[in-house]
Amino acid sequence: MYALKQRILKDGRNLGGGILKVDSFVNHQVDPALMDACGRELAARFAHVGATKILTAEISGIAPAVTTAMHLGVPVVYARKTKPITMPDQVFLTTAPSHTKGRTVELIVSPEYLAAGERVVIIDDFLASGQTILGLVRLAQASGSTVVGIGALIEKDFEGGRAALASLGIPVEALAIITDMSDGKIVIRDA
Amino acid sequence: MYALKQRILKDGRNLGGGILKVDSFVNHQVDPALMDACGRELAARFAHVGATKILTAEISGIAPAVTTAMHLGVPVVYARKTKPITMPDQVFLTTAPSHTKGRTVELIVSPEYLAAGERVVIIDDFLASGQTILGLVRLAQASGSTVVGIGALIEKDFEGGRAALASLGIPVEALAIITDMSDGKIVIRDA
Repeated sequence: MYALKQRILKDGRNLGGGILKVDSFVNHQVDPALMDACGRELAARFAHVGATKILTAEISGIAPAVTTAMHLGVPVVYARKTKPITMPDQVFLTTAPSHTKGRTVELIVSPEYLAAGERVVIIDDFLASGQTILGLVRLAQASGSTVVGIGALIEKDFEGGRAALASLGIPVEALAIITDMSDGKIVIRDA
Repeated sequence: MYALKQRILKDGRNLGGGILKVDSFVNHQVDPALMDACGRELAARFAHVGATKILTAEISGIAPAVTTAMHLGVPVVYARKTKPITMPDQVFLTTAPSHTKGRTVELIVSPEYLAAGERVVIIDDFLASGQTILGLVRLAQASGSTVVGIGALIEKDFEGGRAALASLGIPVEALAIITDMSDGKIVIRDA
């Protein structure tokens, strides 16, 4: 997606160690017009999968998931990393290693909002190792729902996430695919 | 706002102790069409304050802040509760007691995205005791920016937040004002 690619090239920062800083438009400050355009594009790519729900993980998945859900006309559920007091005792819970946090995080969804028979599209800001998304897939499977699509704003091709998801046989879409961050570079393939 | 009030009356749950559960459309599952309508309404109420930025707190402030920002055409910054590795060492940080978490949380904003001279509208899901919003006001003030509006989806009138904010002399808007949650009731005043 041209607008996202250009924005990464303009405002993204390669911090080394495979860390792409996009805090000025995705992760801390959010550009709502760009996020809306990304949501529209992801919704178009998943227009034909019959989605009934978007699933994401707090925190930085929320903005792209909400705009995608808006354009698909379905609700979005964000997995919580801590269980709020409003959640029932019985929940779907899995764990996933977080690359950027350097520890394992919990992903928790209430059975009230993820039910058997739902057709789920998973949306996140990044597809890197794929571990967070695989965690969301496990939550969806535990609920008896079917994952019909996986979408990310930015894929880091060299971290193997797409390969980790391949055996699921689910369509994977990313709007900008980073192919090389060595030596301070940010090389992006059109997607 | 009629649509939000009706939705709270239909799907909100009074869990006792002043806890209003709105997890089915605001806090865990999000109704994107309702959130968009709320963002449009908040943007209309703050159309004339000359906002250059929306400020909110992760996690549940993000969805209404993004839709408000979309309709105002300005960026949104969400204060982080833990400092990500992409953030510089020098940050704006304050603490606020969290009623629902039962502990004090940190609110952290990078000086990269909140600068002197900005005109800030603070948006959050709830206005209850006002402590989170007062924390966001302190962050804005530390940056040298000016808070020109405070908006929330849902105000819990009986928790005193509006009074706590009154001395600031900043316009406060809430789209649904809960006046009574005693004895399992949910009484909402039009707003």
